[in-house]
Amino acid sequence: MSSKDSQWMRIALDEARGAYDRGEVPVGAVLISASGDELARAGNRIEELNDPTAHAEIMAIREAANIAGSPRLVGTTLYVTLEPCAMCAQAISLARVNRLVFAAYDPKGGGVEHGARVFSHKTCHHIPEVVGGLMETEASEMLRDFFKERRQ
Amino acid sequence: MSSKDSQWMRIALDEARGAYDRGEVPVGAVLISASGDELARAGNRIEELNDPTAHAEIMAIREAANIAGSPRLVGTTLYVTLEPCAMCAQAISLARVNRLVFAAYDPKGGGVEHGARVFSHKTCHHIPEVVGGLMETEASEMLRDFFKERRQ
Repeated sequence: MSSKDSQWMRIALDEARGAYDRGEVPVGAVLISASGDELARAGNRIEELNDPTAHAEIMAIREAANIAGSPRLVGTTLYVTLEPCAMCAQAISLARVNRLVFAAYDPKGGGVEHGARVFSHKTCHHIPEVVGGLMETEASEMLRDFFKERRQ
Repeated sequence: MSSKDSQWMRIALDEARGAYDRGEVPVGAVLISASGDELARAGNRIEELNDPTAHAEIMAIREAANIAGSPRLVGTTLYVTLEPCAMCAQAISLARVNRLVFAAYDPKGGGVEHGARVFSHKTCHHIPEVVGGLMETEASEMLRDFFKERRQ
């Protein structure tokens, strides 16, 4: 991990904060090109868009692929504040994302280090490099605050 | 399985044929409400839209949720011509689809009966009823023809 990683995760955390303020589960993501430029950033918009697939990762991948004019985003890095679910993990694989950096682990809904473990199967055609736990505390606290507020 | 199931799968196969004619991997889907009405139908549009997430299942779910004004599609049935991948399986779970009927099994890319087996984990919050193999031969032949043509 480099200081660049932390800078990009800071942007993903800003996107998570924006999701929080919209009443969405606070998850944010930013996708970076092979040459280190930002391609797209997004936060969850599931409730706002009435779209069960509008997770931050999916939104960032879709936007970047649209701009790139290709469904394959070779050499990219995705930063996301929470361990991706199985849907997002498989989308990361389908999009040929090269490297995945996430903040908080998600034992309940994660599909990378938990549950479906999408990248751990022989049939997974493209497996990114995975780094978990970068700025984990901040991301986890934001999620904890969000769910605490919702229970009140 | 009922004759209704076959009628809906026929429509999903028509959508797969449309995808084939657009040069997309031939997979089609149709989503039906609890009361038996069609909500949305779609075929793959990955290459056309430059969207790695534009699988038939995702497209149908997104359209139906948009029309319904809710990210949750309680009581629905999804018919799809190929065993969903892990991305689509998790989207089916997130969307609270009640029943999944698919045609061809997909040992290489499927995420329901193969690979990630998304619905088989304790952490999967919503598990649909699953029926596989309905009109399997027709769906498989279309896929085989497609890949045979592409190799030529």
